[in-house]
Amino acid sequence: MITSASLADAVALLRQRRPLVHNLTSAVVANFTANALLSLGAAPVMAEGADEVALVAAAADALVINLGMLTPQRASAMRTAVAAASGAGRPWALDPVGVGAIAPRTEFARDLCRLRPAAIRGNASEILGLLGEGGGRGVDTTARSDTAVAAARQLARETGAVVAVTGAVDYVTDGARLISLHNGDPVMTRVTGMGCAATAIIGACLATDPAPLAGVAHALSIVGIAGEAAAQGASGPGSMQIAFLDALAALDTTRLRVEPPPG
Amino acid sequence: MITSASLADAVALLRQRRPLVHNLTSAVVANFTANALLSLGAAPVMAEGADEVALVAAAADALVINLGMLTPQRASAMRTAVAAASGAGRPWALDPVGVGAIAPRTEFARDLCRLRPAAIRGNASEILGLLGEGGGRGVDTTARSDTAVAAARQLARETGAVVAVTGAVDYVTDGARLISLHNGDPVMTRVTGMGCAATAIIGACLATDPAPLAGVAHALSIVGIAGEAAAQGASGPGSMQIAFLDALAALDTTRLRVEPPPG
Amino acid sequence: MITSASLADAVALLRQRRPLVHNLTSAVVANFTANALLSLGAAPVMAEGADEVALVAAAADALVINLGMLTPQRASAMRTAVAAASGAGRPWALDPVGVGAIAPRTEFARDLCRLRPAAIRGNASEILGLLGEGGGRGVDTTARSDTAVAAARQLARETGAVVAVTGAVDYVTDGARLISLHNGDPVMTRVTGMGCAATAIIGACLATDPAPLAGVAHALSIVGIAGEAAAQGASGPGSMQIAFLDALAALDTTRLRVEPPPG
Repeated sequence: MITSASLADAVALLRQRRPLVHNLTSAVVANFTANALLSLGAAPVMAEGADEVALVAAAADALVINLGMLTPQRASAMRTAVAAASGAGRPWALDPVGVGAIAPRTEFARDLCRLRPAAIRGNASEILGLLGEGGGRGVDTTARSDTAVAAARQLARETGAVVAVTGAVDYVTDGARLISLHNGDPVMTRVTGMGCAATAIIGACLATDPAPLAGVAHALSIVGIAGEAAAQGASGPGSMQIAFLDALAALDTTRLRVEPPPG
Repeated sequence: MITSASLADAVALLRQRRPLVHNLTSAVVANFTANALLSLGAAPVMAEGADEVALVAAAADALVINLGMLTPQRASAMRTAVAAASGAGRPWALDPVGVGAIAPRTEFARDLCRLRPAAIRGNASEILGLLGEGGGRGVDTTARSDTAVAAARQLARETGAVVAVTGAVDYVTDGARLISLHNGDPVMTRVTGMGCAATAIIGACLATDPAPLAGVAHALSIVGIAGEAAAQGASGPGSMQIAFLDALAALDTTRLRVEPPPG
Repeated sequence: MITSASLADAVALLRQRRPLVHNLTSAVVANFTANALLSLGAAPVMAEGADEVALVAAAADALVINLGMLTPQRASAMRTAVAAASGAGRPWALDPVGVGAIAPRTEFARDLCRLRPAAIRGNASEILGLLGEGGGRGVDTTARSDTAVAAARQLARETGAVVAVTGAVDYVTDGARLISLHNGDPVMTRVTGMGCAATAIIGACLATDPAPLAGVAHALSIVGIAGEAAAQGASGPGSMQIAFLDALAALDTTRLRVEPPPG
């Protein structure tokens, strides 16, 4: 499916093209998301004002919709941005933060799923929540990623999106094919917005990778490999966050090794 | 009152239960607050949308209301969240950022104080400001913490809350008893949101500690001890912020020593 | 124009007076901006609520208006804040983030320019955009800073503001005089909000420096010198952000050397 060589090509292409990625996201992760994109070599823009969101979405190379700290104002801006991005032929990615645990947000996320996202990435509780099959507590998952693989396949078939369930193992599916990814480090779960950064990087890869399934898998490999590299030098969650950004910037000097499944 | 042993038990209990702490707070400190809670071992959630805030507040184990960058929308969400948390029997903590210096915010904070917060934590200017006794400039205190001890006692008696005044020495009172805490480091005042993180950690401890007075004192001891540990390796306010998060995560491997009063 | 000695005096004065700097800015950069001001020795306050913004602006020593993630609500608060700061005789600085690339934001920025800002700082695309001469894509510049020097002079003459164009070389002009500044490091462009922090520091220097032209040049020298110092120990954009804050705090122990033009 994807290989260390295809990943190196994807990273090189992303850096050459420097895609402009428009993010509608929460105040919790806005800074980390923008820095993750900048560190990797993409160009972030975070406009959310009602009078400018359509213009920015249409001008950007990809749109990322993150439901963290959703407000009615931002929800409205998200609908406008999705319409503008779709109208301009740009791919958009959905991060269903808190879906399953927070009922009105779940409803909104299901509505968005009908608007043809190119990719959806969540933890197991969020992906299950999008299908009405339970859900987590707060914004953390209460389930292992493998428990949501069947849901991810179904969601991919229903929406046409590539769907990713992230966790200790990441799964990526277009409904038919399934890729499992084994890079990463447990400390990543102690840094707020790591999943949100992953979805933003999916947005960047959707803009430059020719195939969405490979694009999403490349993006999650980037995050997992940078997370592994960062964990080696980090002394805890604080330094992990910073080392992760450094590792994203140093990706081209890192040995990009897509980790095979164990055993 | 509290001891190094009771603190170790409080930290162990918090990590075992992993309380879900709902924060309504400003964009300045949202990321640092969430990361402080995650690093310590609690689970943060930051929902503030009008249609989801009640649901999240009722589902969380504690609520933290931070008045930084207050807007009418967030003030309204705060009233809803406090009502929902109270209705569900959850404790809530108030951080009166800027109170005393900013008149309309002071009025709002006084209203909130009538809604039975379990804890209130501020600097000296903010605690004095809640009683109409002067106040700071901007969001920093212009007074030493000991100048607000009498005000803290009075506020505790009036509201039923445990009240904490933080500064070089921290004071915690339920109106009758008074605990003074001597951990900490001066560099902590150069990191934005350190007080806000302390109030969020108070929220986490209120959720798991059986007694509110001890819970607040344990929370401030955690912050002071992590601050001391962080200051040892930090080269300035930037690295202090990061080392503080690392130190929160490493608390169980640190010698937890509640610092006795000097002399 | 400015010298290493005048810069040392400006830093010492700023730390002695500890100006209160009121920032209306985006969620992306709010934390980094506040920490940059705190690290340097100024006091940040970020109020933006409709009912408190005028009070805070009038009480602060300077106001900084940053157009990142502009919403109609924050635009309205900005007008109120500018009127209050002007009424109280306080200087205010404008950061025209995204101007030129985002049409409605460009219109709003032009309106603000008529309200007598003491300083305007942007990248080349933003300064050109304020004059209707093209503009960037997203929030990054697509032009070298020297291409906007003529525009900066014209803008300074039209508005009465000191205008700065930042880039590999920074230019500062009051319409007649032109200062070029050569400190800095390329990694600074990989950290989100570095320009925003520069404008916030301009606000602090406007509050304490007797002459606005020198104040803006001192502020940009502070940023450039701290950036150089930070780059020496940084391993990438993540650690650069943190080392920059540490370097701001350590400025008085650093050899403050205003870099002369090369050759």
